[in-house]
Parts: sequence; structure tokens; C-alpha cells
Amino acid sequence: MYRIAVLPGDGIGKEVTKGAVKVLQAIGDRFGHTFHFSYGLIGGEAIDREGTPLPEQTLQMCKQSDAVLLGAVGGPKWDSHPPHVRPEKGLLQIRKEMNLFANIRPVTFYSSLSASSPLKSHVIEGADFVIVRELVGGLYFGKPSERRVEKGEETVVDTLFYKRAEIERIITFAFTLAQKRKKKVTSVDKANVLESSRMWREVAEQVAKRFPDVQLEHMLVDNAAMQLVRSPKQFDVIVTENMFGDILSDEASMLTGSLGMLPSASLSVDGPALYEPIHGSAPDIAGQNKANPLATILSAAMMLRLSFGLTEEADVIERAVKQVLDAGYRTADIAQQGDCVLSTTEMVEKVKDAI
Amino acid sequence: MYRIAVLPGDGIGKEVTKGAVKVLQAIGDRFGHTFHFSYGLIGGEAIDREGTPLPEQTLQMCKQSDAVLLGAVGGPKWDSHPPHVRPEKGLLQIRKEMNLFANIRPVTFYSSLSASSPLKSHVIEGADFVIVRELVGGLYFGKPSERRVEKGEETVVDTLFYKRAEIERIITFAFTLAQKRKKKVTSVDKANVLESSRMWREVAEQVAKRFPDVQLEHMLVDNAAMQLVRSPKQFDVIVTENMFGDILSDEASMLTGSLGMLPSASLSVDGPALYEPIHGSAPDIAGQNKANPLATILSAAMMLRLSFGLTEEADVIERAVKQVLDAGYRTADIAQQGDCVLSTTEMVEKVKDAI
Ligand SMILES: CC(C)[C@H](C(=O)O)[C@@H](O)C(=O)O
Ligand SMILES: CC(C)[C@H](C(=O)O)[C@@H](O)C(=O)O
Repeated sequence: MYRIAVLPGDGIGKEVTKGAVKVLQAIGDRFGHTFHFSYGLIGGEAIDREGTPLPEQTLQMCKQSDAVLLGAVGGPKWDSHPPHVRPEKGLLQIRKEMNLFANIRPVTFYSSLSASSPLKSHVIEGADFVIVRELVGGLYFGKPSERRVEKGEETVVDTLFYKRAEIERIITFAFTLAQKRKKKVTSVDKANVLESSRMWREVAEQVAKRFPDVQLEHMLVDNAAMQLVRSPKQFDVIVTENMFGDILSDEASMLTGSLGMLPSASLSVDGPALYEPIHGSAPDIAGQNKANPLATILSAAMMLRLSFGLTEEADVIERAVKQVLDAGYRTADIAQQGDCVLSTTEMVEKVKDAI
Repeated sequence: MYRIAVLPGDGIGKEVTKGAVKVLQAIGDRFGHTFHFSYGLIGGEAIDREGTPLPEQTLQMCKQSDAVLLGAVGGPKWDSHPPHVRPEKGLLQIRKEMNLFANIRPVTFYSSLSASSPLKSHVIEGADFVIVRELVGGLYFGKPSERRVEKGEETVVDTLFYKRAEIERIITFAFTLAQKRKKKVTSVDKANVLESSRMWREVAEQVAKRFPDVQLEHMLVDNAAMQLVRSPKQFDVIVTENMFGDILSDEASMLTGSLGMLPSASLSVDGPALYEPIHGSAPDIAGQNKANPLATILSAAMMLRLSFGLTEEADVIERAVKQVLDAGYRTADIAQQGDCVLSTTEMVEKVKDAI
């Protein structure tokens, strides 16, 4: 039995996690696994009901699970709240509390969706890389992060902080991943400006010695932002600091024209991992049965593979998604003129049928 | 008489500044202006000859000029130098010493170059925006920026620091610029994570009150990285922190497929401004008379307009460049199959002829 903590969150989070749960149940039926789902509050709804974006009960439930499936958090309703009672804070806290140090975002190009991409097809066709983002350190969590009055002037400070061991951990992770893929690591930093990046580069060089079969390349973050648009096919595994990773992975997610398609995993050293679509809570279409459930379904596939070692089951989901797309089925976000547009629940049914 | 300090720098910097100087001379001849050029060392060559990337003499010359024209700095030769004697340090120092707080990068789409863009033409066609990057604060210059041993562990820290007045200055600048354009400011931050971004957002709201005719929109930096690729036409003036600006402006420069075409200006409160192409020193093609001089020529046009108020003269240069491109002339970086490729000096001659 696999215990899955489900945190639907806000907006379309509810609809897409519901879809993924149905798909997991279909997998359970076909392969004879029992998935046990327990539900918890996070984000805006947790604020409304419990006064905090990550209730202790939710956290305990997640820690005691085998894996966590998250929808999305946030919405305009909570935008004017003070920082510590905003939905996003729940996400930042759960990452920190569960020590989810490695955020993995595969960027896969679906040729059937090439019309939706803003990039020319010769640029994007065949691109297949993974961004590994450090998720519990860097500019996100360094202290101080505060306002100060200095000599009568109002000032503000944020801090980019790393322990060497934290840098080593994420870079080692990236190399291990690259070994199973195309054997190339692009370490992204700003070593011509930041001291933390100079340490990052040093550590990358050191770690590389332990992986003689993997090629290491350093790239400045500004150049990486260019190269992602210019020739995304050059990449295999990109590894970078938390904030750089936030920016570059969102940029990268746009390349394929299928933001609603991209899954992610956030892994810890030894506790349960968390899986979530990379898109947000999309308040504008929430509750309308319009959202694309595929990113969450593909996140569930990552869960099967990475947390439970159920490789075949994961493959079945991924192939089902591809098959459904190849057959021309689309939700509104990836539809082109003339396409027949499915609702969230219809899309979930198509994937279940293909399993 | 206009006194222009020319800092060719390294790599192709020499060739492209030479081209821009010739074009300025042609403008001088046609309109009866005298431009006086004095030359200074910066970057790698300054390190080799003077032991420092920004010799005092260069700095004094720049401060006493009416405007500075810079080529590019850096190259593999100096990559292994310690941080304070690296070519880029010269650039960071001159920005700080001359208080060049506002870096402006117009992103213009040339329809004759649409084949070189990685983006589909319906996405990029008609895009016309300016990135205003804060250039003397933020994560680039905050202290501490150092390594520390804490409880026996090696750690590293960088600091994002702003005075409120610095944020206000750059945002006011962006609004003033937007007033002369399409009257929209997109203020980019990461207010859901950084305290500095929350102050940034507050200040933007305050400044906006003084510009009732300009629309203000806030955008998170990760979303901005997406939107630049997805629908660049939505933007008019983007204003952001130093490091965010570094990343986003390089990303944006790729959209048009014409990195070798894009100029920039860095303005100070009351001293001389600095103009430079946004491309780097391209050591791989340095000294081969292959580099595209147009970004530097267009930077010279920005100088005429912004530092000297010579609007007509600036227009003449910009029209000349457009005309040369429309006539099909290309340097190697923007050439497509079948194009007739010009050298740097030939391209300069074509622009001069068109003036
Ligand atoms: C919601 C926000 C705090 C979060 C982040 O910045 O990490 C999001 O953008 C993400 O990438 O998961
Ligand atoms: C060379 C480097 C220090 C510089 C920067 O990061 O500002 C460059 O990338 C730029 O954008 O002008």
C-alpha cells in the first residue's frame, strides 16, 4: 500500500488533483496496487479555515506519507495579506520543513503541440532537458531579510546564503541524474559577480571529478537565459541556485508552448517527496472544469517512478498522455483553431481510457 | 564641440568602436558638429598594461567627457584571474564610480531580420519595449559578499541591498520614459519571497501616483521570464532590480534574433552617460573583421539623442541602419543562407553611405 498525501490547494488545484487521483486509481486497478489518499489543507483555503497557510496537521500528514501530491496555491483574495499569511508561504514552508532540496523540472517537447510553442519548430523540436533547482537555500531563505533605518534612511536587505555542503548536495544530485541521461551538466551561476557563485563553480569542479563520464559546463545565468531561447537542444541537465532556478525554469516551461503540461518533483534527502504541476492556481478559470489536468497527471507519473519505483506504471501514464495528444484531444490552453476542446474531466477520462 | 571618451576594451570591442567612431565622424561632417575622441584602457587590456581593469586615468578621462562609448570587455585569457583583477570588474567599477544608475536597453524588432529570430514571427512582429535595469545597487553591490566559516562549516553569503531612495530614483526614471512612449510600466519583482521586492512594489505604487497618465502593472520575475517569450508585445517599459534586469534583458535580446544589433545606454543623475552594445567581446571572432558593428553604431545614435540632444542626427543613423538591412546587407551573425555577407568595415561603409 502506498500512502499519498493530497494537497489540492486553491483555484484549479482542486480540479487537477482530482483528475490525477482518478488516474492513479486506474493504475492501481490495472496493476493491483492500493493507493491510500489522505487530504490536507494548504495555501489560501488553509488561511481561511485555519488562519495559517500550512497547518501543523497538514505537515504531519505529509511527513507520515510515502509521497505528496500538490495542486497549486494562491489567488487574488489573499494578495493583500501580510507576507507570513500568504498562500505561497505555505509552499515555501513545506519545502523547508520537509527538506525538499531538489526541485526537478523536465522540459519535454511534444511534437503534437508544436503549434502552441512561441518558438520556431526547428529551434525547439527534439529539446529534452531537466532543470534541477536548489529549493531550500539561496536568496529565498537567507537571513537577514528585513527593512532597516540606517542614518535616517529607509533601507532593505535580502540575503543569498549557502553552506558548502548544500551546494555539494544539489550538484551531486544533478550529476547522478545526468549519468542516467545524456551525461552533460550545465551549472548555471553568476561567478563574475557573486561570491556564492564562485563557490558554486568550485564545488561543481570538485564534484565533477567523481563523475568522469559526465561532461561539466559552466554558464553565466544571463547567458543561460539567452541560450534557452536560442538553442534549447544543447541542454541535458541544468543545475542552479534557487532564485536563478525559479526564473530559468519558468522561462523554459514556456518554450514548449505547454505550460499546462509540465510536471515537477521536489525530493528530500530521505523523507517523502512532493509532486506538483509547475503551473499556478489560475484563479481566472478556477471551478469551470477548463483546466488542463495533464501536468498533474504527469506529476503523478513522476511520483510512481521516483518515490515508488513503479517504472512500468509511470511509463503507462506517460504513453497514455502522449497517445491522447496524438489523437488530437486538447484542453483550451493547448488548443489551436479547429481543435475539439475537452473539459478537465473529459481529458481525465481520455487518459484513463488509454491506460 | 562634444568630447567623447572611447573605451574599446577587449576582443571585438576595438573593431566595433572603430566603426561607430567613423559613423559619428560622418554625422559630424554632414551636420557641422565637432566630435573630439579620446581613448582609454579598460578590461583585460588595462589589466595587462596597467595591472588593473579600470585605471584611474581612464576614469578621470570619462568623468571629464560629455559621454562615454564602450566596446566590450573580457576574454578567456583573464578568466582565471582573481575576481578583483578581472575585466568585468572594470565595467562594474565604472558603473559605480560614475553612478550610472539606469541601464536602458531598447528591444526593437527588425522585420527584415525576422528569419534570424528563434520566435515565430506572429509572436515577435511589432514588439517594441525598453528594459530599464537598476545598475548600481541590488544583488550586485550589497555587502557582505564573502565566505565565512560558521561552526566549522564553510558558508558563503551575498547581499541584495537597496536604499528606498535608490528604488524611487530608478522607478521614477522608468515612469518618465514611459510617458514619452506607450505609457505603461511593468515593474518586475519577486514580492512573494523578497522583502526588497515588497519595498520595490510599495515605491512603485507611490511613484505611480505622480504619473496618472501612465499605467502601472506588477509582474513576478518568474512570470516575466515566461511572458517575454510568450507575448513580448504586451510590454512598453520594464523596470527591475540589477540582477533580475541582467537576466531578463539578455533573454529579451535573444527574441529578435539580433543580439549584434542591440544598443544600450547607462545614465547617471548628472554626470556623463555611457553607451555600449549589449553583446560581449566575442573572443572567438576577435580581430577577424567579422563582428557586427551595428549595435555600437546604434549606441552612438542613442548618445546623440540622450546626451547631446541631437535628435535629427540620431534619427539619421537609425534610418541608415534600417535602410542597409532592408537592402539585404548582413554581417555573418545575422545572415541567412543565400545572404551576401559583409565584413565589419564593409558594413560600416554601407551605413556611412546611407547617411
Ligand atoms: C509561489 C512561489 C513562491 C514559487 C517560488 O517562487 O518558488 C513558485 O514560483 C514556484 O516556482 O514554485
Ligand atoms: C560582464 C557582466 C559583469 C555584466 C553584468 O552582469 O552586468 C554584463 O553581463 C552586462 O549585462 O552588462
